Amino acid sequence: MQRSGAVECEERAATPRGATAIVDALVEVVGRLGPLSFLGIGAAGLVDDVGVVRAAPNLPGVFDLPLRDLVAERLGIDVVVANDATCAALAEWRLGAARGAHHAAVITLGTGIGGGFVTGGSLLLGANGFAGEPGHMVVDPSGPRCVCGQRGCWERYASGAGLARMAREAAMGGRLDAVVASRGGDPEAVRAEDLGPAARAGDEGAQAVFAEFARWTALGIVNLVNLLDLEVVVLGGGLVAEAGLFLPDVRRFVDELLYFRRHRPSTQIVAAELGDRAGAIGAALLRSIAPS
Amino acid sequence: MQRSGAVECEERAATPRGATAIVDALVEVVGRLGPLSFLGIGAAGLVDDVGVVRAAPNLPGVFDLPLRDLVAERLGIDVVVANDATCAALAEWRLGAARGAHHAAVITLGTGIGGGFVTGGSLLLGANGFAGEPGHMVVDPSGPRCVCGQRGCWERYASGAGLARMAREAAMGGRLDAVVASRGGDPEAVRAEDLGPAARAGDEGAQAVFAEFARWTALGIVNLVNLLDLEVVVLGGGLVAEAGLFLPDVRRFVDELLYFRRHRPSTQIVAAELGDRAGAIGAALLRSIAPS
Repeated sequence: MQRSGAVECEERAATPRGATAIVDALVEVVGRLGPLSFLGIGAAGLVDDVGVVRAAPNLPGVFDLPLRDLVAERLGIDVVVANDATCAALAEWRLGAARGAHHAAVITLGTGIGGGFVTGGSLLLGANGFAGEPGHMVVDPSGPRCVCGQRGCWERYASGAGLARMAREAAMGGRLDAVVASRGGDPEAVRAEDLGPAARAGDEGAQAVFAEFARWTALGIVNLVNLLDLEVVVLGGGLVAEAGLFLPDVRRFVDELLYFRRHRPSTQIVAAELGDRAGAIGAALLRSIAPS
Repeated sequence: MQRSGAVECEERAATPRGATAIVDALVEVVGRLGPLSFLGIGAAGLVDDVGVVRAAPNLPGVFDLPLRDLVAERLGIDVVVANDATCAALAEWRLGAARGAHHAAVITLGTGIGGGFVTGGSLLLGANGFAGEPGHMVVDPSGPRCVCGQRGCWERYASGAGLARMAREAAMGGRLDAVVASRGGDPEAVRAEDLGPAARAGDEGAQAVFAEFARWTALGIVNLVNLLDLEVVVLGGGLVAEAGLFLPDVRRFVDELLYFRRHRPSTQIVAAELGDRAGAIGAALLRSIAPS
Protein backbone atom coordinates (compact mmCIF):
# COMPACT_ATOMS: atom_id res chain seq x y z
CA MET A 1 0.00 0.00 0.00
CA GLN A 2 1.22 3.48 -0.81
CA ARG A 3 1.29 6.22 1.79
CA SER A 4 -1.65 7.80 0.04
CA GLY A 5 -3.89 4.98 1.17
CA ALA A 6 -4.46 3.81 -2.40
CA VAL A 7 -5.65 0.21 -2.60
CA GLU A 8 -3.34 -1.73 -4.94
CA CYS A 9 -5.25 -4.97 -5.03
CA GLU A 10 -8.20 -6.58 -3.34
CA GLU A 11 -9.12 -10.20 -2.61
CA ARG A 12 -12.27 -11.36 -0.89
CA ALA A 13 -13.31 -14.56 0.81
CA ALA A 14 -16.32 -15.57 2.86
CA THR A 15 -15.76 -16.03 6.59
CA PRO A 16 -16.04 -19.73 7.41
CA ARG A 17 -17.28 -21.07 10.76
CA GLY A 18 -14.84 -21.98 13.46
CA ALA A 19 -11.50 -20.62 14.61
CA THR A 20 -9.22 -22.97 12.64
CA ALA A 21 -11.12 -22.48 9.39
CA ILE A 22 -11.00 -18.69 9.86
CA VAL A 23 -7.21 -18.74 10.26
CA ASP A 24 -6.86 -21.06 7.23
CA ALA A 25 -9.05 -18.80 5.10
CA LEU A 26 -7.11 -15.70 6.17
CA VAL A 27 -3.75 -17.29 5.33
CA GLU A 28 -5.12 -18.44 1.98
CA VAL A 29 -6.49 -15.06 0.95
CA VAL A 30 -3.36 -13.25 2.11
CA GLY A 31 -1.30 -15.70 0.02
CA ARG A 32 -3.13 -14.50 -3.08
CA LEU A 33 -1.91 -10.91 -2.43
CA GLY A 34 1.73 -11.86 -3.01
CA PRO A 35 4.64 -11.49 -0.59
CA LEU A 36 4.01 -9.04 2.26
CA SER A 37 6.29 -7.60 4.93
CA PHE A 38 3.46 -6.75 7.33
CA LEU A 39 -0.16 -7.75 7.80
CA GLY A 40 -2.76 -5.62 9.56
CA ILE A 41 -6.08 -7.27 10.41
CA GLY A 42 -9.30 -5.50 11.31
CA ALA A 43 -11.69 -7.87 13.08
CA ALA A 44 -15.21 -7.25 14.33
CA GLY A 45 -15.52 -7.68 18.08
CA LEU A 46 -13.39 -7.22 21.15
CA VAL A 47 -9.76 -7.45 20.10
CA ASP A 48 -7.20 -7.01 22.84
CA ASP A 49 -3.83 -5.31 22.68
CA VAL A 50 -1.96 -8.54 21.92
CA GLY A 51 -4.21 -9.46 19.00
CA VAL A 52 -6.49 -11.92 20.75
CA VAL A 53 -10.09 -11.82 19.53
CA ARG A 54 -11.75 -12.11 22.91
CA ALA A 55 -15.30 -12.25 21.57
CA ALA A 56 -16.95 -11.46 18.25
CA PRO A 57 -20.70 -11.03 17.81
CA ASN A 58 -20.58 -12.25 14.20
CA LEU A 59 -18.34 -15.26 14.80
CA PRO A 60 -20.42 -17.62 16.93
CA GLY A 61 -18.34 -19.75 19.25
CA VAL A 62 -15.14 -17.79 18.67
CA PHE A 63 -13.72 -16.68 22.00
CA ASP A 64 -10.18 -15.85 23.08
CA LEU A 65 -8.72 -16.63 19.64
CA PRO A 66 -5.01 -15.59 19.49
CA LEU A 67 -5.41 -14.45 15.90
CA ARG A 68 -2.25 -12.35 15.73
CA ASP A 69 0.05 -15.11 16.92
CA LEU A 70 -1.61 -17.88 14.87
CA VAL A 71 -1.45 -15.89 11.63
CA ALA A 72 2.06 -14.54 12.31
CA GLU A 73 3.34 -18.05 12.89
CA ARG A 74 1.82 -19.31 9.63
CA LEU A 75 3.04 -16.37 7.53
CA GLY A 76 6.34 -15.60 9.23
CA ILE A 77 5.72 -11.82 9.16
CA ASP A 78 4.67 -9.16 11.66
CA VAL A 79 0.92 -9.07 12.24
CA VAL A 80 -1.19 -6.56 14.19
CA VAL A 81 -4.91 -7.10 14.84
CA ALA A 82 -7.41 -4.46 15.99
CA ASN A 83 -11.13 -3.94 15.98
CA ASP A 84 -12.37 -3.21 12.45
CA ALA A 85 -14.11 0.05 13.35
CA THR A 86 -11.00 1.17 15.21
CA CYS A 87 -9.11 0.52 11.95
CA ALA A 88 -11.65 2.57 10.00
CA ALA A 89 -11.20 5.40 12.50
CA LEU A 90 -7.42 5.20 12.10
CA ALA A 91 -7.80 5.45 8.32
CA GLU A 92 -10.22 8.40 8.38
CA TRP A 93 -7.96 10.17 10.87
CA ARG A 94 -4.73 9.63 8.95
CA LEU A 95 -6.03 9.90 5.41
CA GLY A 96 -9.70 10.86 5.39
CA ALA A 97 -12.29 13.18 6.87
CA ALA A 98 -10.69 13.52 10.34
CA ARG A 99 -7.22 14.32 8.99
CA GLY A 100 -5.24 16.47 11.40
CA ALA A 101 -7.81 16.38 14.21
CA HIS A 102 -6.68 16.00 17.81
CA HIS A 103 -10.12 15.08 19.15
CA ALA A 104 -12.34 13.11 16.78
CA ALA A 105 -14.86 10.30 16.62
CA VAL A 106 -15.39 8.09 13.60
CA ILE A 107 -18.77 6.37 13.78
CA THR A 108 -19.54 3.52 11.39
CA LEU A 109 -23.27 3.31 10.72
CA GLY A 110 -23.87 -0.16 9.30
CA THR A 111 -26.17 -2.94 10.44
CA GLY A 112 -24.92 -1.95 13.89
CA ILE A 113 -22.65 0.90 15.01
CA GLY A 114 -18.88 0.71 15.27
CA GLY A 115 -16.55 3.43 16.28
CA GLY A 116 -13.14 4.72 17.08
CA PHE A 117 -11.90 7.83 18.86
CA VAL A 118 -8.91 10.09 18.65
CA THR A 119 -8.19 11.83 21.96
CA GLY A 120 -5.31 14.22 22.53
CA GLY A 121 -3.88 13.51 19.10
CA SER A 122 -3.68 9.71 19.47
CA LEU A 123 -5.92 6.82 18.44
CA LEU A 124 -7.67 5.70 21.63
CA LEU A 125 -7.22 1.99 22.28
CA GLY A 126 -8.16 1.94 25.94
CA ALA A 127 -6.89 -0.22 28.77
CA ASN A 128 -7.20 -3.47 26.77
CA GLY A 129 -7.70 -2.35 23.18
CA PHE A 130 -11.51 -2.34 23.54
CA ALA A 131 -12.18 1.41 23.42
CA GLY A 132 -14.74 2.72 20.94
CA GLU A 133 -17.94 0.75 21.30
CA PRO A 134 -20.44 3.63 21.05
CA GLY A 135 -23.05 1.27 19.63
CA HIS A 136 -23.55 -0.15 23.10
CA MET A 137 -24.02 3.19 24.81
CA VAL A 138 -27.51 2.83 26.31
CA VAL A 139 -29.69 5.74 25.30
CA ASP A 140 -33.05 4.32 26.42
CA PRO A 141 -33.11 1.56 29.05
CA SER A 142 -36.71 0.71 28.20
CA GLY A 143 -35.88 0.40 24.48
CA PRO A 144 -35.50 -2.71 22.31
CA ARG A 145 -33.30 -5.56 23.49
CA CYS A 146 -29.73 -5.62 22.08
CA VAL A 147 -27.41 -8.57 21.36
CA CYS A 148 -25.10 -7.26 24.10
CA GLY A 149 -27.71 -8.06 26.74
CA GLN A 150 -28.80 -4.51 27.45
CA ARG A 151 -31.83 -2.58 26.20
CA GLY A 152 -31.92 0.58 24.12
CA CYS A 153 -28.31 0.64 22.94
CA TRP A 154 -27.58 3.41 20.45
CA GLU A 155 -27.17 0.83 17.70
CA ARG A 156 -30.83 -0.18 18.12
CA TYR A 157 -31.62 3.30 16.69
CA ALA A 158 -28.84 4.97 14.68
CA SER A 159 -28.00 2.00 12.45
CA GLY A 160 -29.35 0.09 9.47
CA ALA A 161 -31.22 -2.19 11.86
CA GLY A 162 -32.65 0.85 13.64
CA LEU A 163 -33.69 2.53 10.41
CA ALA A 164 -35.39 -0.71 9.27
CA ARG A 165 -37.30 -0.91 12.55
CA MET A 166 -38.42 2.72 12.27
CA ALA A 167 -39.48 2.05 8.66
CA ARG A 168 -41.56 -0.98 9.67
CA GLU A 169 -43.16 0.92 12.53
CA ALA A 170 -44.02 3.81 10.20
CA ALA A 171 -45.41 1.34 7.67
CA MET A 172 -47.57 -0.42 10.26
CA GLY A 173 -48.75 2.95 11.52
CA GLY A 174 -49.98 3.97 8.07
CA ARG A 175 -47.32 6.64 7.58
CA LEU A 176 -45.59 5.01 4.59
CA ASP A 177 -48.56 4.03 2.41
CA ALA A 178 -46.89 4.65 -0.96
CA VAL A 179 -43.86 2.59 0.04
CA VAL A 180 -46.11 -0.17 1.40
CA ALA A 181 -48.04 -0.19 -1.89
CA SER A 182 -44.76 -0.63 -3.80
CA ARG A 183 -44.10 -3.69 -1.62
CA GLY A 184 -47.40 -5.30 -2.62
CA GLY A 185 -49.35 -3.81 0.27
CA ASP A 186 -47.46 -5.67 3.02
CA PRO A 187 -46.15 -3.27 5.69
CA GLU A 188 -43.93 -6.03 7.10
CA ALA A 189 -42.16 -6.25 3.72
CA VAL A 190 -40.90 -2.64 3.92
CA ARG A 191 -37.10 -2.42 4.05
CA ALA A 192 -34.71 0.34 5.08
CA GLU A 193 -33.47 0.54 1.48
CA ASP A 194 -36.96 1.48 0.28
CA LEU A 195 -36.77 4.74 2.19
CA GLY A 196 -34.06 6.58 0.24
CA PRO A 197 -35.77 6.56 -3.15
CA ALA A 198 -39.12 7.41 -1.57
CA ALA A 199 -37.70 10.31 0.46
CA ARG A 200 -35.89 11.69 -2.58
CA ALA A 201 -39.14 11.49 -4.53
CA GLY A 202 -40.77 13.69 -1.89
CA ASP A 203 -42.58 11.07 0.21
CA GLU A 204 -43.17 12.91 3.51
CA GLY A 205 -43.55 9.70 5.50
CA ALA A 206 -40.15 8.47 4.34
CA GLN A 207 -38.63 11.89 5.07
CA ALA A 208 -40.12 11.74 8.58
CA VAL A 209 -38.46 8.36 9.20
CA PHE A 210 -35.10 9.86 8.20
CA ALA A 211 -35.78 12.79 10.55
CA GLU A 212 -36.45 10.36 13.41
CA PHE A 213 -33.27 8.48 12.50
CA ALA A 214 -31.34 11.78 12.42
CA ARG A 215 -32.64 12.69 15.87
CA TRP A 216 -31.38 9.44 17.41
CA THR A 217 -28.08 9.78 15.57
CA ALA A 218 -27.71 13.33 16.92
CA LEU A 219 -28.57 12.25 20.45
CA GLY A 220 -25.64 9.82 20.53
CA ILE A 221 -23.29 12.32 18.92
CA VAL A 222 -24.24 14.94 21.52
CA ASN A 223 -23.41 12.43 24.25
CA LEU A 224 -19.99 11.87 22.70
CA VAL A 225 -19.31 15.61 22.32
CA ASN A 226 -20.35 16.26 25.94
CA LEU A 227 -17.95 13.52 27.03
CA LEU A 228 -15.00 14.06 24.71
CA ASP A 229 -15.26 17.66 23.37
CA LEU A 230 -14.71 16.64 19.77
CA GLU A 231 -13.57 18.84 16.88
CA VAL A 232 -15.06 16.53 14.30
CA VAL A 233 -17.42 13.56 14.12
CA VAL A 234 -17.06 11.49 10.96
CA LEU A 235 -19.99 9.31 9.95
CA GLY A 236 -19.04 6.27 7.87
CA GLY A 237 -20.49 2.89 7.05
CA GLY A 238 -23.09 1.82 4.54
CA LEU A 239 -25.77 4.30 5.60
CA VAL A 240 -23.58 7.22 4.58
CA ALA A 241 -24.62 6.59 0.97
CA GLU A 242 -27.88 8.26 2.06
CA ALA A 243 -26.17 11.03 4.06
CA GLY A 244 -27.91 13.72 2.01
CA LEU A 245 -31.20 12.56 3.53
CA PHE A 246 -30.19 12.82 7.19
CA LEU A 247 -26.88 14.63 7.69
CA PRO A 248 -28.35 18.17 7.57
CA ASP A 249 -30.91 17.15 10.22
CA VAL A 250 -28.21 15.50 12.34
CA ARG A 251 -26.26 18.76 12.33
CA ARG A 252 -29.35 20.77 13.22
CA PHE A 253 -30.36 18.46 16.09
CA VAL A 254 -26.81 18.37 17.50
CA ASP A 255 -26.80 22.14 17.46
CA GLU A 256 -30.15 22.15 19.31
CA LEU A 257 -29.22 19.56 21.92
CA LEU A 258 -25.65 20.32 22.91
CA TYR A 259 -25.01 21.67 26.41
CA PHE A 260 -24.41 25.45 26.30
CA ARG A 261 -24.34 25.24 22.53
CA ARG A 262 -24.27 29.01 22.01
CA HIS A 263 -21.08 29.35 24.04
CA ARG A 264 -18.88 26.79 22.30
CA PRO A 265 -17.52 26.23 18.82
CA SER A 266 -19.53 23.83 16.67
CA THR A 267 -18.34 20.28 16.25
CA GLN A 268 -18.06 19.49 12.53
CA ILE A 269 -20.17 16.52 11.49
CA VAL A 270 -19.06 15.17 8.15
CA ALA A 271 -19.36 12.10 5.96
CA ALA A 272 -16.44 9.67 5.79
CA GLU A 273 -14.16 9.93 2.77
CA LEU A 274 -12.70 6.46 2.38
CA GLY A 275 -15.81 4.40 1.75
CA ASP A 276 -16.24 0.76 2.72
CA ARG A 277 -12.53 0.02 2.42
CA ALA A 278 -11.72 2.31 5.39
CA GLY A 279 -11.38 -0.70 7.71
CA ALA A 280 -8.91 -2.43 5.40
CA ILE A 281 -6.91 0.74 4.79
CA GLY A 282 -6.76 1.37 8.53
CA ALA A 283 -5.63 -2.21 9.14
CA ALA A 284 -2.68 -1.56 6.83
CA LEU A 285 -1.90 1.55 8.89
CA LEU A 286 -1.80 -0.43 12.14
CA ARG A 287 1.93 -0.87 11.68
CA SER A 288 2.31 2.81 12.55
CA ILE A 289 0.70 2.38 15.97
CA ALA A 290 2.13 -1.05 16.82
CA PRO A 291 4.01 -1.08 20.12
CA SER A 292 7.70 -1.55 19.34
CA MET B 1 1.04 22.91 48.60
CA GLN B 2 3.39 20.02 49.14
CA ARG B 3 3.81 17.31 46.52
CA SER B 4 1.83 14.99 48.77
CA GLY B 5 -1.31 17.00 48.12
CA ALA B 6 -1.53 18.05 51.77
CA VAL B 7 -3.67 21.16 52.28
CA GLU B 8 -1.66 23.76 54.18
CA CYS B 9 -4.39 26.27 54.73
CA GLU B 10 -7.95 26.90 53.68
CA GLU B 11 -9.99 30.03 53.22
CA ARG B 12 -13.62 30.18 52.14
CA ALA B 13 -15.85 32.88 50.74
CA ALA B 14 -19.34 32.89 49.31
CA THR B 15 -19.66 33.36 45.55
CA PRO B 16 -21.18 36.80 44.91
CA ARG B 17 -23.35 37.64 41.89
CA GLY B 18 -21.81 39.16 38.80
CA ALA B 19 -18.49 38.81 37.03
CA THR B 20 -16.70 41.79 38.62
CA ALA B 21 -17.75 40.84 42.14
CA ILE B 22 -16.58 37.26 41.57
CA VAL B 23 -13.12 38.41 40.47
CA ASP B 24 -12.92 40.81 43.45
CA ALA B 25 -13.91 38.07 45.88
CA LEU B 26 -11.37 35.68 44.40
CA VAL B 27 -8.54 38.19 44.64
CA GLU B 28 -9.54 38.99 48.22
CA VAL B 29 -9.63 35.37 49.40
CA VAL B 30 -6.36 34.55 47.62
CA GLY B 31 -4.77 37.55 49.36
CA ARG B 32 -5.58 35.95 52.72
CA LEU B 33 -3.49 32.89 51.75
CA GLY B 34 -0.24 34.86 51.68
CA PRO B 35 2.15 35.31 48.74
CA LEU B 36 1.74 32.70 45.99
CA SER B 37 3.82 31.94 42.92
CA PHE B 38 0.99 30.23 41.05
CA LEU B 39 -2.80 30.08 41.27
CA GLY B 40 -4.92 27.24 39.96
CA ILE B 41 -8.67 27.80 39.79
CA GLY B 42 -11.34 25.13 39.44
CA ALA B 43 -14.62 26.62 38.21
CA ALA B 44 -17.96 24.94 37.62
CA GLY B 45 -19.07 25.16 33.99
CA LEU B 46 -17.50 25.27 30.57
CA VAL B 47 -13.95 26.60 30.95
CA ASP B 48 -11.94 26.86 27.77
CA ASP B 49 -8.24 26.26 27.26
CA VAL B 50 -7.33 29.92 27.75
CA GLY B 51 -9.16 30.20 31.06
CA VAL B 52 -12.36 31.82 29.84
CA VAL B 53 -15.48 30.68 31.70
CA ARG B 54 -17.73 30.39 28.68
CA ALA B 55 -20.85 29.50 30.66
CA ALA B 56 -21.56 28.35 34.20
CA PRO B 57 -24.85 26.82 35.32
CA ASN B 58 -24.45 28.13 38.88
CA LEU B 59 -23.36 31.66 37.95
CA PRO B 60 -26.39 33.23 36.32
CA GLY B 61 -25.51 35.82 33.72
CA VAL B 62 -21.81 34.91 33.63
CA PHE B 63 -20.76 34.18 30.07
CA ASP B 64 -17.39 34.41 28.34
CA LEU B 65 -15.64 35.67 31.47
CA PRO B 66 -11.83 35.80 30.91
CA LEU B 67 -11.20 34.68 34.48
CA ARG B 68 -7.58 33.62 34.00
CA ASP B 69 -6.46 36.91 32.50
CA LEU B 70 -8.47 39.11 34.89
CA VAL B 71 -7.12 37.36 37.98
CA ALA B 72 -3.56 37.10 36.63
CA GLU B 73 -3.51 40.81 35.93
CA ARG B 74 -4.71 41.64 39.45
CA LEU B 75 -2.30 39.26 41.22
CA GLY B 76 0.72 39.45 38.91
CA ILE B 77 1.25 35.67 38.98
CA ASP B 78 0.60 32.75 36.64
CA VAL B 79 -2.99 31.54 36.75
CA VAL B 80 -4.59 28.47 35.16
CA VAL B 81 -8.35 27.84 35.22
CA ALA B 82 -10.12 24.57 34.46
CA ASN B 83 -13.46 22.95 35.14
CA ASP B 84 -13.76 21.99 38.82
CA ALA B 85 -14.58 18.33 38.17
CA THR B 86 -11.67 18.13 35.73
CA CYS B 87 -9.51 19.42 38.61
CA ALA B 88 -10.91 16.75 40.93
CA ALA B 89 -10.10 14.11 38.32
CA LEU B 90 -6.55 15.43 38.03
CA ALA B 91 -6.13 15.19 41.81
CA GLU B 92 -7.53 11.66 42.10
CA TRP B 93 -5.35 10.58 39.17
CA ARG B 94 -2.13 12.11 40.50
CA LEU B 95 -2.61 11.57 44.22
CA GLY B 96 -5.76 9.55 44.87
CA ALA B 97 -7.77 6.52 43.83
CA ALA B 98 -6.81 6.58 40.11
CA ARG B 99 -3.08 6.89 40.79
CA GLY B 100 -1.02 5.35 38.00
CA ALA B 101 -3.98 4.61 35.70
CA HIS B 102 -3.68 5.21 31.95
CA HIS B 103 -7.43 5.04 31.30
CA ALA B 104 -9.66 6.31 34.09
CA ALA B 105 -12.83 8.24 34.80
CA VAL B 106 -13.43 10.27 37.92
CA ILE B 107 -17.15 10.89 38.41
CA THR B 108 -18.28 13.44 40.97
CA LEU B 109 -21.71 12.56 42.34
CA GLY B 110 -23.04 15.71 43.93
CA THR B 111 -26.23 17.65 43.32
CA GLY B 112 -25.41 16.98 39.66
CA ILE B 113 -22.64 14.92 38.06
CA GLY B 114 -19.22 16.22 37.13
CA GLY B 115 -16.39 14.29 35.63
CA GLY B 116 -12.96 14.06 34.18
CA PHE B 117 -11.20 11.41 32.13
CA VAL B 118 -7.69 10.15 31.72
CA THR B 119 -7.09 8.61 28.28
CA GLY B 120 -3.79 7.18 27.13
CA GLY B 121 -2.04 8.39 30.26
CA SER B 122 -3.07 12.05 29.97
CA LEU B 123 -5.82 14.16 31.45
CA LEU B 124 -8.38 14.63 28.68
CA LEU B 125 -9.17 18.28 28.08
CA GLY B 126 -10.75 17.94 24.64
CA ALA B 127 -10.72 20.31 21.70
CA ASN B 128 -11.61 23.38 23.80
CA GLY B 129 -11.08 22.25 27.39
CA PHE B 130 -14.72 21.10 27.74
CA ALA B 131 -14.21 17.31 27.87
CA GLY B 132 -15.76 15.37 30.73
CA GLU B 133 -19.42 16.29 31.03
CA PRO B 134 -20.84 12.80 31.65
CA GLY B 135 -23.73 14.31 33.58
CA HIS B 136 -25.27 15.42 30.30
CA MET B 137 -25.02 12.05 28.63
CA VAL B 138 -28.67 11.31 27.79
CA VAL B 139 -29.67 7.90 29.11
CA ASP B 140 -33.44 8.23 28.66
CA PRO B 141 -34.79 10.78 26.16
CA SER B 142 -38.27 10.54 27.69
CA GLY B 143 -36.90 11.18 31.19
CA PRO B 144 -37.08 14.32 33.33
CA ARG B 145 -36.08 17.67 31.87
CA CYS B 146 -32.51 18.83 32.60
CA VAL B 147 -31.07 22.34 32.98
CA CYS B 148 -29.02 21.72 29.81
CA GLY B 149 -32.20 21.62 27.73
CA GLN B 150 -32.27 17.88 27.12
CA ARG B 151 -34.31 15.18 28.86
CA GLY B 152 -33.08 12.19 30.82
CA CYS B 153 -29.46 13.25 31.32
CA TRP B 154 -27.50 10.88 33.55
CA GLU B 155 -27.38 13.56 36.26
CA ARG B 156 -31.17 13.41 36.54
CA TYR B 157 -30.64 9.90 38.01
CA ALA B 158 -27.16 9.20 39.41
CA SER B 159 -26.86 12.33 41.53
CA GLY B 160 -28.13 13.83 44.76
CA ALA B 161 -31.01 15.38 42.83
CA GLY B 162 -31.76 12.01 41.24
CA LEU B 163 -31.66 10.19 44.58
CA ALA B 164 -33.99 12.80 46.10
CA ARG B 165 -36.47 12.34 43.25
CA MET B 166 -36.37 8.54 43.62
CA ALA B 167 -36.89 8.96 47.36
CA ARG B 168 -39.94 11.20 46.86
CA GLU B 169 -41.40 8.82 44.29
CA ALA B 170 -40.92 5.88 46.64
CA ALA B 171 -42.49 7.89 49.47
CA MET B 172 -45.52 8.85 47.37
CA GLY B 173 -45.83 5.23 46.25
CA GLY B 174 -46.04 4.00 49.85
CA ARG B 175 -42.66 2.27 49.75
CA LEU B 176 -41.00 4.42 52.43
CA ASP B 177 -43.65 4.54 55.15
CA ALA B 178 -41.30 4.53 58.14
CA VAL B 179 -39.25 7.37 56.64
CA VAL B 180 -42.44 9.29 55.82
CA ALA B 181 -43.64 8.82 59.40
CA SER B 182 -40.35 10.27 60.70
CA ARG B 183 -41.04 13.33 58.53
CA GLY B 184 -44.42 13.92 60.15
CA GLY B 185 -46.34 11.83 57.62
CA ASP B 186 -45.63 14.09 54.63
CA PRO B 187 -44.17 12.13 51.68
CA GLU B 188 -43.18 15.38 49.98
CA ALA B 189 -40.97 16.21 52.96
CA VAL B 190 -38.75 13.14 52.44
CA ARG B 191 -35.16 14.06 51.62
CA ALA B 192 -32.28 12.12 50.08
CA GLU B 193 -30.40 12.38 53.37
CA ASP B 194 -33.16 10.48 55.18
CA LEU B 195 -32.37 7.37 53.17
CA GLY B 196 -28.93 6.49 54.53
CA PRO B 197 -29.91 6.09 58.18
CA ALA B 198 -33.08 4.23 57.20
CA ALA B 199 -31.25 1.84 54.86
CA ARG B 200 -28.58 1.15 57.47
CA ALA B 201 -31.34 0.42 60.02
CA GLY B 202 -32.68 -2.24 57.64
CA ASP B 203 -35.55 -0.35 55.97
CA GLU B 204 -36.16 -2.36 52.80
CA GLY B 205 -37.84 0.53 51.01
CA ALA B 206 -34.81 2.76 51.55
CA GLN B 207 -32.50 -0.06 50.46
CA ALA B 208 -34.58 -0.47 47.29
CA VAL B 209 -34.14 3.23 46.47
CA PHE B 210 -30.38 2.83 46.80
CA ALA B 211 -30.54 -0.23 44.53
CA GLU B 212 -32.43 1.81 41.90
CA PHE B 213 -29.85 4.58 42.27
CA ALA B 214 -27.06 2.02 41.90
CA ARG B 215 -28.62 0.65 38.71
CA TRP B 216 -28.69 4.10 37.06
CA THR B 217 -25.16 4.81 38.27
CA ALA B 218 -24.01 1.50 36.77
CA LEU B 219 -25.78 2.18 33.49
CA GLY B 220 -23.78 5.36 32.92
CA ILE B 221 -20.54 3.73 34.02
CA VAL B 222 -21.13 0.87 31.56
CA ASN B 223 -21.59 3.44 28.79
CA LEU B 224 -18.27 5.03 29.72
CA VAL B 225 -16.45 1.68 29.85
CA ASN B 226 -17.89 0.65 26.47
CA LEU B 227 -16.66 3.95 25.04
CA LEU B 228 -13.31 4.38 26.77
CA ASP B 229 -12.25 0.90 28.03
CA LEU B 230 -11.36 2.14 31.49
CA GLU B 231 -9.12 0.47 34.06
CA VAL B 232 -10.73 2.30 36.92
CA VAL B 233 -13.78 4.43 37.63
CA VAL B 234 -13.50 6.61 40.72
CA LEU B 235 -16.71 7.82 42.33
CA GLY B 236 -16.34 11.06 44.27
CA GLY B 237 -18.57 13.87 45.45
CA GLY B 238 -20.86 14.19 48.43
CA LEU B 239 -22.81 10.99 47.82
CA VAL B 240 -19.70 8.90 48.32
CA ALA B 241 -20.21 9.29 52.07
CA GLU B 242 -22.96 6.69 51.54
CA ALA B 243 -20.89 4.50 49.19
CA GLY B 244 -21.34 1.48 51.45
CA LEU B 245 -25.05 1.55 50.60
CA PHE B 246 -24.69 1.50 46.81
CA LEU B 247 -21.14 0.75 45.65
CA PRO B 248 -21.45 -3.07 45.94
CA ASP B 249 -24.64 -2.93 43.83
CA VAL B 250 -23.00 -0.59 41.30
CA ARG B 251 -20.19 -3.13 40.85
CA ARG B 252 -22.65 -6.00 40.49
CA PHE B 253 -24.81 -4.17 37.93
CA VAL B 254 -21.77 -3.06 35.88
CA ASP B 255 -20.63 -6.65 35.82
CA GLU B 256 -24.10 -7.72 34.62
CA LEU B 257 -24.50 -5.04 31.97
CA LEU B 258 -21.10 -4.72 30.31
CA TYR B 259 -20.76 -5.93 26.72
CA PHE B 260 -19.01 -9.34 26.60
CA ARG B 261 -18.34 -9.01 30.30
CA ARG B 262 -17.07 -12.57 30.69
CA HIS B 263 -14.32 -11.99 28.11
CA ARG B 264 -12.71 -8.87 29.48
CA PRO B 265 -10.98 -7.82 32.69
CA SER B 266 -13.18 -6.06 35.21
CA THR B 267 -13.04 -2.32 35.52
CA GLN B 268 -12.34 -1.37 39.12
CA ILE B 269 -15.01 0.85 40.62
CA VAL B 270 -13.76 2.57 43.74
CA ALA B 271 -14.54 5.47 46.05
CA ALA B 272 -12.52 8.66 45.75
CA GLU B 273 -9.75 9.17 48.30
CA LEU B 274 -9.35 12.93 48.50
CA GLY B 275 -12.77 14.00 49.76
CA ASP B 276 -14.41 17.30 48.99
CA ARG B 277 -11.10 19.12 48.61
CA ALA B 278 -10.20 17.10 45.49
CA GLY B 279 -11.20 20.00 43.23
CA ALA B 280 -8.99 22.47 45.10
CA ILE B 281 -6.06 20.04 45.24
CA GLY B 282 -6.41 19.40 41.52
CA ALA B 283 -6.53 23.13 40.81
CA ALA B 284 -3.15 23.44 42.53
CA LEU B 285 -1.87 20.65 40.27
CA LEU B 286 -2.97 22.48 37.11
CA ARG B 287 0.47 24.03 36.88
CA SER B 288 1.78 20.61 35.84
CA ILE B 289 -0.49 20.45 32.80
CA ALA B 290 -0.33 24.13 31.81
CA PRO B 291 0.85 24.61 28.24
CA SER B 292 4.31 26.17 28.37
